[in-house]
Amino acid sequence: MNRPKIVILGAGYGGMISTVKLQKMLGANEADITLVNKHNYHYQTTWLHENAAGTLHQDRTRIKISDVVDLNRVNLVQDTVVSIHQDEKKVKLENGELTYDYLIVGLGFEAATFGIQGLLEHAFTISNINSSRLIREHIEYNFARYNNEKEERPELLNIVVGGAGFTGIEFVGELANRVPELCEEYDIPREKVRILNVEAAPTALPGFDEELVEYAMNLLEGKGVEFKLGTMLKEVTNNSIIVEKDEQREEIPSSNVIWAAGVRGNSIVEEAGFESARGRVKVGDDLRAPGYDDVFIIGDCALVMDKENDRPYPPTAQIAIQEAETTAHNIKTLINGGDHLEKFVPDLKGTVASLGEGQAIGVVFGGKKLFGWTASVMKKVIDNRYLLKLGGVGLLLKKGKFNIFTK
Amino acid sequence: MNRPKIVILGAGYGGMISTVKLQKMLGANEADITLVNKHNYHYQTTWLHENAAGTLHQDRTRIKISDVVDLNRVNLVQDTVVSIHQDEKKVKLENGELTYDYLIVGLGFEAATFGIQGLLEHAFTISNINSSRLIREHIEYNFARYNNEKEERPELLNIVVGGAGFTGIEFVGELANRVPELCEEYDIPREKVRILNVEAAPTALPGFDEELVEYAMNLLEGKGVEFKLGTMLKEVTNNSIIVEKDEQREEIPSSNVIWAAGVRGNSIVEEAGFESARGRVKVGDDLRAPGYDDVFIIGDCALVMDKENDRPYPPTAQIAIQEAETTAHNIKTLINGGDHLEKFVPDLKGTVASLGEGQAIGVVFGGKKLFGWTASVMKKVIDNRYLLKLGGVGLLLKKGKFNIFTK
Repeated sequence: MNRPKIVILGAGYGGMISTVKLQKMLGANEADITLVNKHNYHYQTTWLHENAAGTLHQDRTRIKISDVVDLNRVNLVQDTVVSIHQDEKKVKLENGELTYDYLIVGLGFEAATFGIQGLLEHAFTISNINSSRLIREHIEYNFARYNNEKEERPELLNIVVGGAGFTGIEFVGELANRVPELCEEYDIPREKVRILNVEAAPTALPGFDEELVEYAMNLLEGKGVEFKLGTMLKEVTNNSIIVEKDEQREEIPSSNVIWAAGVRGNSIVEEAGFESARGRVKVGDDLRAPGYDDVFIIGDCALVMDKENDRPYPPTAQIAIQEAETTAHNIKTLINGGDHLEKFVPDLKGTVASLGEGQAIGVVFGGKKLFGWTASVMKKVIDNRYLLKLGGVGLLLKKGKFNIFTK
Repeated sequence: MNRPKIVILGAGYGGMISTVKLQKMLGANEADITLVNKHNYHYQTTWLHENAAGTLHQDRTRIKISDVVDLNRVNLVQDTVVSIHQDEKKVKLENGELTYDYLIVGLGFEAATFGIQGLLEHAFTISNINSSRLIREHIEYNFARYNNEKEERPELLNIVVGGAGFTGIEFVGELANRVPELCEEYDIPREKVRILNVEAAPTALPGFDEELVEYAMNLLEGKGVEFKLGTMLKEVTNNSIIVEKDEQREEIPSSNVIWAAGVRGNSIVEEAGFESARGRVKVGDDLRAPGYDDVFIIGDCALVMDKENDRPYPPTAQIAIQEAETTAHNIKTLINGGDHLEKFVPDLKGTVASLGEGQAIGVVFGGKKLFGWTASVMKKVIDNRYLLKLGGVGLLLKKGKFNIFTK
């Protein structure tokens, strides 16, 4: 009865796939599996920008953990992780404590605010279901306020998105579709509303194929998005932002500032004393934390180097899912007394960025470019494949995106 | 070509019925008719509490003026009335000025705040489409905030309605239906939310039949409404109210305070120098303002005495509509050179207060009491009859309430 205890922290992409795989691969008597998560649901982080814009309901994005995890096999502890004590093989929770033999750290990202003044206090981040729903309601509330004000208050209608990376671009794409609906709902002329995208780099989607970036920018500008590239966000106040370009400062009124310009690893990982850079641990080939044979780190807190260019892979859902599969395999090997662990080799299938209803850009299978509707269909195929992997056909039918012409 | 100019201020119940009646009764060469209104739409004030609760969309409540008024016959001036100068027969607007030969003042009510500290700054009123939509969004925003806060903040979930008169009771009835939906949408346990109704009088619906009041209170309490009767609202702060009962003060956290406890006439009427009490002018039998043969005052700013008990009739939609009919008739008489004006005699058909979906209480035809579903059907019949009167079958079909089982 001395079954090894596997504790999985976080029910994100990595945590969920690890749990589901281990539940399948291990017999009931081989191990105790415990999943720790703040909520009783998992959510698709890559869809949150749609919830935040109000173009997709959060119940499409989230999945009850009990719908895909067998709670007779896995203990679900709904609690918040406070700290990891790897020398004692312990995890402290807000309402308890767990010991483990094997730990999978699947804690998600935190927003990187780069010390920008006022950002923490006045800007929102697309971090989880609660914060995304709050962004949706915050914008709607400001639009509802507009016609109740005695004076013209443009800050209520200006929406500023910090960052033209993946999330920033996907978010302004959704906003561009949503704003006309909001204008109708709240009796506001469309031309009064600005959607601003502020990016410090000289281009949108830095690192992405130039032709695709041009396509995306033209499309979004055509829908009314204003890009401010090569522009630093210097400060966020209660009702404005201050930006700087070519040493010229400008103040732009806005009470709707959403920061989508950078993520970092989880501070719990940092505080646990793992060797890390901004909360990300450079894991071994087998995804274990250096110096700890019983701790696997996956997802946003894992730093995996691309040996071809000696740069870290970006923390994507795709990689988190693949890391989870390798980790489950390796934990099974360890439990079975083996020591030949699998090396993690990412199998990148491509990257697609959605640009709002029926529009996307992407690169798949090592170089082929996709535009417009084709890319948007590919995006849905990728999302649906994940649901199939996580919860089978039942989950796919419940939460999948099938209408290839719209959502 | 010296046609008399009729100017109608406000497209409320009184203004709209006056306009529609005059448009029918007068030939195109008999008079110039001008309707002044802030918006290009009319709305049913008696439905606003449903918009504020979020149980009915504002587009059901409002009616485009051009859908019922013939704009070839009537000039619609979309502007805000600033002041009335009856000695010069002029009306000043924010963006212009109009002269009249006959004036119909159909300006609506203002909230009476009785000097309660903080009420103007921190409480909302169900006054118009904009303010009602704002209440809906304000409550939703606070519910969305709740799960994003580090500490328990009950003020976000407590909803306080000041006043258990008609509007207050109808509003808490809608809220009682809406709150469970909001709890589901924002992941909030129902028991965390309080709906409080604060009333200074020792009873809800003061003046209404006791048996009906008891029915209403039992029903609403069963749905979770807490009544605080005989309780004075002393102060409203940013996140609480202070009430007093039997000389005991209590502070209750709430950032959702809606004041529905009193109306008064329009301050423009007061400032114009008409003899008035709290913005209401004791009009003559023919509905003209004392001392001004060319000014008719109808609706919320008109004070008409009930000779049976020497008390003024409450300013209801029913009376405003009837006053409008008398006024249109009298203006036609004056234009045709007559001087025998019709005396206004209200024909009270009854009063029904809705208590939320499928529930109401009422008194009709001089004493018969109605409860529950029967009363709720009667309420819809009354509302539908108004639409028929205002815009015929077309409008009734577009905006009527036909589902007698729900909305």
